[in-house]
Amino acid sequence: MKKVSVGLIGYAFMGKAHSNAYRQVNAFFKTRVKPHMKVICGRNEKNVKEAAERYGWEEYATDWREVVDRKDIDLIDICTPGDSHHDIAIAAAEAGKVVFCEKPLANTLKETQDMYKAVQKAKVIHMICHNYRKVPAVVLAHQLTQEGKLGTIYHFRGTYLQDWLVDPKFPRVWRLEKKRAGSGALGDIASHSLDLARYVVGEITEVSGALTTFVKERPLPSQPRKKGKVTVDDAIASVVRFENGALGTIEATRFATGRKNYNRFEINGSRGSVAFNLERLNELEVYFRDDADHLQGFRRILVTEARHPYFGAWWPPGHIIGYEHTFTHVVHDLMEAIAGDTLPTPNFEDGLKNQKVLDTIERSAKSKRWERVR
Amino acid sequence: MKKVSVGLIGYAFMGKAHSNAYRQVNAFFKTRVKPHMKVICGRNEKNVKEAAERYGWEEYATDWREVVDRKDIDLIDICTPGDSHHDIAIAAAEAGKVVFCEKPLANTLKETQDMYKAVQKAKVIHMICHNYRKVPAVVLAHQLTQEGKLGTIYHFRGTYLQDWLVDPKFPRVWRLEKKRAGSGALGDIASHSLDLARYVVGEITEVSGALTTFVKERPLPSQPRKKGKVTVDDAIASVVRFENGALGTIEATRFATGRKNYNRFEINGSRGSVAFNLERLNELEVYFRDDADHLQGFRRILVTEARHPYFGAWWPPGHIIGYEHTFTHVVHDLMEAIAGDTLPTPNFEDGLKNQKVLDTIERSAKSKRWERVR
Amino acid sequence: MKKVSVGLIGYAFMGKAHSNAYRQVNAFFKTRVKPHMKVICGRNEKNVKEAAERYGWEEYATDWREVVDRKDIDLIDICTPGDSHHDIAIAAAEAGKVVFCEKPLANTLKETQDMYKAVQKAKVIHMICHNYRKVPAVVLAHQLTQEGKLGTIYHFRGTYLQDWLVDPKFPRVWRLEKKRAGSGALGDIASHSLDLARYVVGEITEVSGALTTFVKERPLPSQPRKKGKVTVDDAIASVVRFENGALGTIEATRFATGRKNYNRFEINGSRGSVAFNLERLNELEVYFRDDADHLQGFRRILVTEARHPYFGAWWPPGHIIGYEHTFTHVVHDLMEAIAGDTLPTPNFEDGLKNQKVLDTIERSAKSKRWERVR
Amino acid sequence: MKKVSVGLIGYAFMGKAHSNAYRQVNAFFKTRVKPHMKVICGRNEKNVKEAAERYGWEEYATDWREVVDRKDIDLIDICTPGDSHHDIAIAAAEAGKVVFCEKPLANTLKETQDMYKAVQKAKVIHMICHNYRKVPAVVLAHQLTQEGKLGTIYHFRGTYLQDWLVDPKFPRVWRLEKKRAGSGALGDIASHSLDLARYVVGEITEVSGALTTFVKERPLPSQPRKKGKVTVDDAIASVVRFENGALGTIEATRFATGRKNYNRFEINGSRGSVAFNLERLNELEVYFRDDADHLQGFRRILVTEARHPYFGAWWPPGHIIGYEHTFTHVVHDLMEAIAGDTLPTPNFEDGLKNQKVLDTIERSAKSKRWERVR
Repeated sequence: MKKVSVGLIGYAFMGKAHSNAYRQVNAFFKTRVKPHMKVICGRNEKNVKEAAERYGWEEYATDWREVVDRKDIDLIDICTPGDSHHDIAIAAAEAGKVVFCEKPLANTLKETQDMYKAVQKAKVIHMICHNYRKVPAVVLAHQLTQEGKLGTIYHFRGTYLQDWLVDPKFPRVWRLEKKRAGSGALGDIASHSLDLARYVVGEITEVSGALTTFVKERPLPSQPRKKGKVTVDDAIASVVRFENGALGTIEATRFATGRKNYNRFEINGSRGSVAFNLERLNELEVYFRDDADHLQGFRRILVTEARHPYFGAWWPPGHIIGYEHTFTHVVHDLMEAIAGDTLPTPNFEDGLKNQKVLDTIERSAKSKRWERVR
Repeated sequence: MKKVSVGLIGYAFMGKAHSNAYRQVNAFFKTRVKPHMKVICGRNEKNVKEAAERYGWEEYATDWREVVDRKDIDLIDICTPGDSHHDIAIAAAEAGKVVFCEKPLANTLKETQDMYKAVQKAKVIHMICHNYRKVPAVVLAHQLTQEGKLGTIYHFRGTYLQDWLVDPKFPRVWRLEKKRAGSGALGDIASHSLDLARYVVGEITEVSGALTTFVKERPLPSQPRKKGKVTVDDAIASVVRFENGALGTIEATRFATGRKNYNRFEINGSRGSVAFNLERLNELEVYFRDDADHLQGFRRILVTEARHPYFGAWWPPGHIIGYEHTFTHVVHDLMEAIAGDTLPTPNFEDGLKNQKVLDTIERSAKSKRWERVR
Repeated sequence: MKKVSVGLIGYAFMGKAHSNAYRQVNAFFKTRVKPHMKVICGRNEKNVKEAAERYGWEEYATDWREVVDRKDIDLIDICTPGDSHHDIAIAAAEAGKVVFCEKPLANTLKETQDMYKAVQKAKVIHMICHNYRKVPAVVLAHQLTQEGKLGTIYHFRGTYLQDWLVDPKFPRVWRLEKKRAGSGALGDIASHSLDLARYVVGEITEVSGALTTFVKERPLPSQPRKKGKVTVDDAIASVVRFENGALGTIEATRFATGRKNYNRFEINGSRGSVAFNLERLNELEVYFRDDADHLQGFRRILVTEARHPYFGAWWPPGHIIGYEHTFTHVVHDLMEAIAGDTLPTPNFEDGLKNQKVLDTIERSAKSKRWERVR
Repeated sequence: MKKVSVGLIGYAFMGKAHSNAYRQVNAFFKTRVKPHMKVICGRNEKNVKEAAERYGWEEYATDWREVVDRKDIDLIDICTPGDSHHDIAIAAAEAGKVVFCEKPLANTLKETQDMYKAVQKAKVIHMICHNYRKVPAVVLAHQLTQEGKLGTIYHFRGTYLQDWLVDPKFPRVWRLEKKRAGSGALGDIASHSLDLARYVVGEITEVSGALTTFVKERPLPSQPRKKGKVTVDDAIASVVRFENGALGTIEATRFATGRKNYNRFEINGSRGSVAFNLERLNELEVYFRDDADHLQGFRRILVTEARHPYFGAWWPPGHIIGYEHTFTHVVHDLMEAIAGDTLPTPNFEDGLKNQKVLDTIERSAKSKRWERVR
């Protein structure tokens, strides 16, 4: 069986999650091509060396350009902060590699457009890692809307709530600098809600948004006695309209005390509704108006049956899976796409469309008006 | 003990709920003055006579003006559709009666302002029936924010979801006519969310809102083969900013399939959070950052202890109360206010402030811009 | 319309709940005969006088024998502690009254048998107040088992959990004296679980039970510095077998810290399951194996629709009812039975059958063997 | 760093789970010694070869005796059906290997005793894989009872509910043969509940139990038209008493329609309570009587913080883990025990104590009396 030789750029949180996916995918899934964990790359030699050993990479490297240039690498996986996605992705595309990139695709719409052009021009396979699309329960929600089981969609209600910034003493890490991170809750987590909205409902055409920064200065990580400016949003709230007439709300914050990874959405349609919450990712709540009148209610489906998306590869019913499994599903889909020479979803086109919505929310937050996505 | 002689105008849904409150209040609560169920009034003699008998009123009447003019009536309770609140309330105030009015106070801001002026001028006691303020769990949430137990408030997230209009064959009842009802989900249910937002967080200063009507024509109640226009909103979504810096979202709809009376709010503050849902009104979820680090979690408090607001009058812990009890609490507070010659809350001032926010949401929905509440 | 003149014996917790039911039933339900709240009876004149006024009784009395003897009384309602049920019920039956009695029917099996013989001999209508049978969600569960929607029943799992005795300083009230109360958690709350088991599954044939008293002495109510013996059980746990082959567990305790009125049961059948919890009495969880394979899940049915048992009389969907409404339903059924001259359920036969199971559990707890119900 | 060379006997469900744990442990945890995935063993060469490749084992073998005899193997991991545990474990102990065995330790008490003697005699390190002890939320529950945070324990309520046998057409697999499996729900899943009971509450001294087989014949796997006898229990229900005075119920069944892997327990103590459910294994519900009176409630703790047991090695808060992670924790503890030359828990002593309780339940089910654990 053909091996896909992977070069992973970045070894932190996402590097750990992606490494796990490559290591695990074929212990559970049969894919027509298999990833080969060739080289992991990061600027700090000591750390990247340790990561290579720990996560099971054959080699390590410190210069991503060298990795991109290697003939024996088939796939470049980009797990670095957003400000470097652009250069790496374009170089990888030009080198003819499969390009697999963490979300958001880039920090600006312009960069995103360039990246999308590059992969199209190079005719390479590309994918964006919106891993929550690959939660079995989310795929089931998507299937229900696609099959019309929920009828006409009236509402989407997305909230992504975390609380890791509530403490004002939490340091001014790179994720709080616009230059590095592009934006705050908007690009980091609202982007997930938006991608899910597009996946389960459809395209967003118009938005009205607000951004807020509650704590404007924080201790610098390296000099805790000095403070640095927080240049990104702590929270974002918006009302959106979809192409199909649905009305939506999307909210994301890092100041929702007690909510840890509460990525929840609810869809209401003329025939039914669904609700999902990432903190209980093995469950999907579904309501059908077609049920007998006196027996209608939200069903809590434990999406852990062999017949549910992806689950058959894992464990018996009720033996739940966790966060990292979503990445394994992404890698599964990517491997199958490579084997079939097709484009997986979500890909850079989704990344670009998502970025357009994020960008429109930022514009609306400034203009204080509704703005059209364009 | 002094009796407060009540004239109730309206005998439908709200008339039934208010009647129940007068009938029940003193079987459970000791109040310094007691309501006397004197006269119920409605235009249809057959129906109002039946209601009088059924609900325990001494007399019935068919002309509200006659009731307002009666010397032996101390309190006028207004349970009619919104388009008649203005005239009845002003007449009652001028007649020196205690004025107790269903929400929203009126259909337009102008009417509301006139009504507020009238009660002030007449120096009568007035109250608006935002009964959800009197759910024990909601009072507990209010106490927690007032005592600072939640710290600085960052977020309010209010959704009032129902689904009784999802079926397009549902008739074009009076609640769907702008002339009668003033607005749709906005005045009917978003008004509750807004009132709760003001009660537990504080004043709203700025809003961006959207209104939508999904089903634009419906069968006429009297001629089901003919269709009439729906001239109110089916759903409303908005982002709001509070005086204290908090960012909020408020959404209300009658198209949320499967949600029956899902009036939910969540508040996130620097020290804690609370969440409430009217479908489980005996419960309050509360999170405290002051709890031991490894033992923090949302507590599901069953707000049914003798020490909880109002509950001591009812049943032992865990023996839950229902929807209509909230009206009994309102009447309890009103009787106590009359006994003490003080102004109960919420009163017409709250009604006016609420109306200003509703009005601003409508303006914003038209202008497609953020609008200041003024 | 015919009036049923009621004499209520007892004015404490149950007296308050029954009074409420008589006062409320016809404001919501149309019954063919209506209760007339004639006389309430208790030994303490001051208290019973106050209760009469508060709860809306025309008269009060201090000697139950006089009330039973009155010609103008049609119905004797027994809300006193268990040790007096026997005498009152038999006298009432002999006087030709409708006899309505709180549960458990009596403190001993012998007394219960005598009472059942008395009502049969006198050919009077009789009813036992197992009010939880009249929760709309419980009736729905019953309907589902009756209609075969759950198939063959394999399991019943009943737990009735409270925590009001956890504090060892809680006084030795009459409910903790065997002479007055008959038993502890067994007769007080396990009796509810057993009655529900019989209602939704069927007859119990064999039991193995255990009784425990965790705190053996408590301060006397009148002399808190002195201690009195607790002569009843604090907790009871049992395994039971049903006539239809199902295997059950029934547990009741007043030492389940944090559980206030957690009367939960779950039934598992070959085609489906249901779960109910009194702390959320407006909800029923139902699972159907006949649902599409990938969409099976426990539905949370909000049993608040007009088409659900009893609910149409109350409020719109999602506007929940509370604990006391169950008594109103009981009185509704009793009035309808009187109007139709039929026997309502549950009645003294149920009371007797329940008592046999309670008695068998006590025997088993002593013998430390399985015992047959006989 | 020292490597522990592992020989894994069995490659089915448990073989897959254990393999995963060895493969994953050091990508997340730093242990002082590391497992080396040397050889996997099974009788079917084709299957075991495939498993070796798939799960990452260096070699495969078809005769467990050869594996046990190999000098280069340090640890024998037993994942075969219960009837072979005895021979493999004793041989492994005699060969001086670390012995790590799936639960239940064996099919009979006698075998279990022999195994325990063998590991003691051989002075080897031994462990039983009761993996649910290593769920972070379960460890937290254990800590709370150990620290006295729940006070005196009054109740343990354990239910392990599954539904995979509800369909009578489900075949008569080996797990339904007494000869192979020892028992049914009793040894397979009630054993987990019992082990958890012992872990969080303490030793059980006396039991009253019942076993039932609902479907007595099933199609043979190899000849579906022929039926074979089911010789094990489908369900088990029992009341138990603990050394510390607590009263418990333990129930396990494979006939609880809709419950997939519902391993739930609740503990009630004088100061607090906890509740856990394996279907939501990242959560623990905790109630404290020491909380302010009006703010007491069950807290839903998301046991996903860096400070929670094991969780720091995985992902940020709220990024949940799944079923297989519990095995990784077991292997982590085993490696640390080997490094420190100490005995991990749970070990064969726990296995023996568990077996004594299981055996006593079987005796009680036959005698229909309470039986003492001895």
